[in-house]
This record gives sequence, structure tokens and C-alpha cells, in this order.
Amino acid sequence: KSYLGVDVGSTTSKCVVIDDDRAILGMSLVTEGIGTEGSTKAVSEVLEQVGVRREDISKTVATGYGRKIFPDSDRKVSELSCHVKGVFSQVPEARTLIDIGGQDAKVMSITESGIMTNFQMNDKCAAGTGRFLDVMARILQLDVAQLEGEYFKAAKPSKISSTCTVFSESEVISQLASGEKREDVVAGICQSVATRFASLVMRVGITPTLCMSGGVAKNGGVRDALEKELGLQIVCPPNAQYMGALGAALYAWETEHGIIRL
Amino acid sequence: KSYLGVDVGSTTSKCVVIDDDRAILGMSLVTEGIGTEGSTKAVSEVLEQVGVRREDISKTVATGYGRKIFPDSDRKVSELSCHVKGVFSQVPEARTLIDIGGQDAKVMSITESGIMTNFQMNDKCAAGTGRFLDVMARILQLDVAQLEGEYFKAAKPSKISSTCTVFSESEVISQLASGEKREDVVAGICQSVATRFASLVMRVGITPTLCMSGGVAKNGGVRDALEKELGLQIVCPPNAQYMGALGAALYAWETEHGIIRL
Ligand code: SF4
Repeated sequence: KSYLGVDVGSTTSKCVVIDDDRAILGMSLVTEGIGTEGSTKAVSEVLEQVGVRREDISKTVATGYGRKIFPDSDRKVSELSCHVKGVFSQVPEARTLIDIGGQDAKVMSITESGIMTNFQMNDKCAAGTGRFLDVMARILQLDVAQLEGEYFKAAKPSKISSTCTVFSESEVISQLASGEKREDVVAGICQSVATRFASLVMRVGITPTLCMSGGVAKNGGVRDALEKELGLQIVCPPNAQYMGALGAALYAWETEHGIIRL
Repeated sequence: KSYLGVDVGSTTSKCVVIDDDRAILGMSLVTEGIGTEGSTKAVSEVLEQVGVRREDISKTVATGYGRKIFPDSDRKVSELSCHVKGVFSQVPEARTLIDIGGQDAKVMSITESGIMTNFQMNDKCAAGTGRFLDVMARILQLDVAQLEGEYFKAAKPSKISSTCTVFSESEVISQLASGEKREDVVAGICQSVATRFASLVMRVGITPTLCMSGGVAKNGGVRDALEKELGLQIVCPPNAQYMGALGAALYAWETEHGIIRL
């Protein structure tokens, strides 16, 4: 038997299929999120990868920002619960989970038994989220994936003084105009996300082990800046971007087995 | 004798020259603010207009965001004090002054004798400031000055649900893409500034008469939306954009006459 988790995010759709032993059989990611065919496409891709037909999936759970519009699931589970479950399955020592996504950022406290006890979320302000990085990458005419490489080249990181994305945009433009090096500007950008996000983290407090999931976890620059800002090492589960979908797949498994723990 | 007030803002520089009776002799506005030659240019323009040489100005007071870098003043006075003084001289019944500028927004309480007793300011977030309008006008390929005309044509104002400028930008783009009329989208934009700004106003409270100064006061759309939001009429002094510079000129006069009241 197999179980499907679908994470319909704001900018990407992800799927994970697991088997009866809760081992990952396949994963897919499509860079189209809510309001698109992204989730359908991601489902087809993962099924093809695993070699399973849709009707042979025992249970499907949808999560993420766009889970409500996903047509074809047995249950919908909040993305917070799914992220926690996904990460806890990979890193059982995780006690704090930070997640910076395409347009929000969250911090969650996790108990020894994997239950979420407290959380803080920013989904109102683009600063401190992946959206800030997107805006800045566009100005720099870089792909977001290129920011990490630039960050680690920086010798003299620039300093962004505004917290607002819009005002920071102007600062970055004038830094570039006044000849600051691209890598230094990128380091300032990553630092800005880290600083802004750290203030959210402080509202929940940190108990180690600190884990990070979500799209921005791939960005080693932000991760490095955040480790320095928080003074703690960050453990990234493998495939950090898929933790929501993995959690959803685990909920699908639990649904099938009559164990439900939100 | 004549007195010069210079308001070096973030996006514009303004000058006002008054005479010994505190009557306005001339005004100038240059659309270059801090970090440019804008203030020097504005000074030359107003002097030429009035027909007075620089050395014949008895006293000069600089105000605004960029007052510290203005080289040639007898005193610097905060923009809050100057705005209050300028507006109070034109509208003596003013008890609350709201000012939405190019990249900040303020609310001030004024006593019967023209003293500022309380204020709130937002200079951290572009939402609810003129900057929000600039960003949106650029998306619409309109000049900011054209927004008012569009606003009053709207039959079915669009609704922006995000408070963040960056997220609102995406909303506006998809509203336009889904065929919403430009005037309706503009109405939604003006409403968004009003709603966001109203929450700042509420922190100070409103005592009528309510006055408005600053660059955005020219935008009848935002003014109308704000009147509806606050349920109160807004009185705009003539030349609302020059109130800071006028206040500075009045401080120059007071300095000359040994009366100083901040
Ligand atoms: S501070 Fe800037 S990025 Fe944050 S909500 Fe305001 S406009 Fe958006």
C-alpha cells in the first residue's frame, strides 16, 4: 500500500509518497502553487516516479496554503502540523522548528513526543520571508538559488538599515549604484532576513535542537546568517522543502491505520 | 526683511519665504530630496521668484528628513514642529494634523494655542505612506497625480486584502490580469492607504478640526477614502505640501524676533 501527501504552497506544490513502513518512495516539486494546475502536476509526477496509479494510493492528505482547493484528498491537515510531523520523523531530537516559506515565516515548539505546543507566524509582512529574497534577487538579476554562492564570497557585508522590503529595495539599489560589490550586497540581504526572522523566533524562544524547513532552508546564506544571529547551530533535515508533504503523507498513513494525532 | 524656511524631504525639497508680517512672499518645490542638489535648487528658485538675494534673508530655518545636511541655516527644527506651526498658522482651529509623506506618515495632536502634545509616526513600513502609492502607480503605469481622477470614476472599488505593500502589489497585478477596471483597482489602492493609516490615527485619537498636510494631501482619492474611514471631514490648508517649509519660515521669523516656541 502507499500513501500520498500533497503540500500546495503559495509558490510551489510538493508531493511525497510513502509505503506501509513509512519509507519515502518518491517526491516531486512543481514551481507552481495555489490557483494553478501545480498540485495536479506534482501528483502526476510523483505517481509516475513511484510507478503507482492514482487509484492505488490508499489515503491522501493535503496540506499547505492551498489545501482547501485541492480536490482529491481524504483529509486536509494544517501546514503547521504537517511540518512538525515531517521534521520530527527525520530529526526526532527537534524541539524548535523554524520554517521560512515563499511568503510567510513560522516558528514552532515541539515536545519530546513530537507534539506542537506553541507557535508564532508572520504572514503579514514580506520582510523576513522568502518573498524578500525574491524581490532582492530580481533587483540583482540573479536567481534566488544563486544567492548562497554570492553570500559566501562576501568579504565586507553591506548593511541594510530598513526593515521594510520596499525601503530595503531602495537601499540595495543605491548600494549597487555606489559600487558596493554584489556579493557584499547579497550578504546584507541574507542578514536582513535573518535579523527580521530572529525577532519572530524570540517570541517563542528556542529549545535546541533547532531545525529548519521550508524553501528558504535551501539558502545556505540565510541559514548561516541565522545561526550567527541566534548563536545556535541549525539542523536541516534532508529534503527540507518536502517536510510539509512528508508530514501529510504520514498523516495519510495514520488515517489508514486509525491513529490520528494532530 | 524676509525669512526663509527650507523643508528637505525624502523625495522633494520645498521653500517658503515670508515677510515681517508673516505673509507668504513666495514658494518653491523641487522634486529632488535629500542627498541631491534639490534643496539648493529650491532655494535659488524661491529667491528668484521673490526677487531677494540670499544675503538679504534675515534668518533661515531648515526642517525635514534631510535638514541635517542642509548647509546654510540658522537653526534646524524637527519636521513635526514645523508642520504643526505651518498648519496652525493657516487653520487655527486645527486640533489634529495628519500628514502622509513620501515615505512616512504621522498624526499630531495640537492644543488651542498651537502646541503639539502627542504624536504617532510610521516610518518603518511603506504601507499607508506615499511610497505605497508610488509602487502602485508604477504597476498601473500611471503618474501618482492621475490616481485621483481614476478614484472618482470607480463604480465598484476593488478590495486589497494584504496590508503589506509587496503582497498588495501581487494582488493588484492579479486584479488587473483578471480584468478588474483600472479605476476600481485605483479605488482599492487609495482605500488601502486610508485603512492602514487610520489604524495609526486611532492610536492618537482624533479631536476635530482634522487637518491634512504632506504630499499625499493632494490626492483627493486618499483624502476621500480617509474621510469615510474616519467619519470626519478633513480640512486641507491651501498649499498643503508647503506646511513644513512655512512652519520653518515662521520659526525663522520667531528666531529673528526673539520668540521661540517649539
Ligand atoms: S514593512 Fe514593508 S514589507 Fe513589511 S508589511 Fe510593511 S510594506 Fe510590507
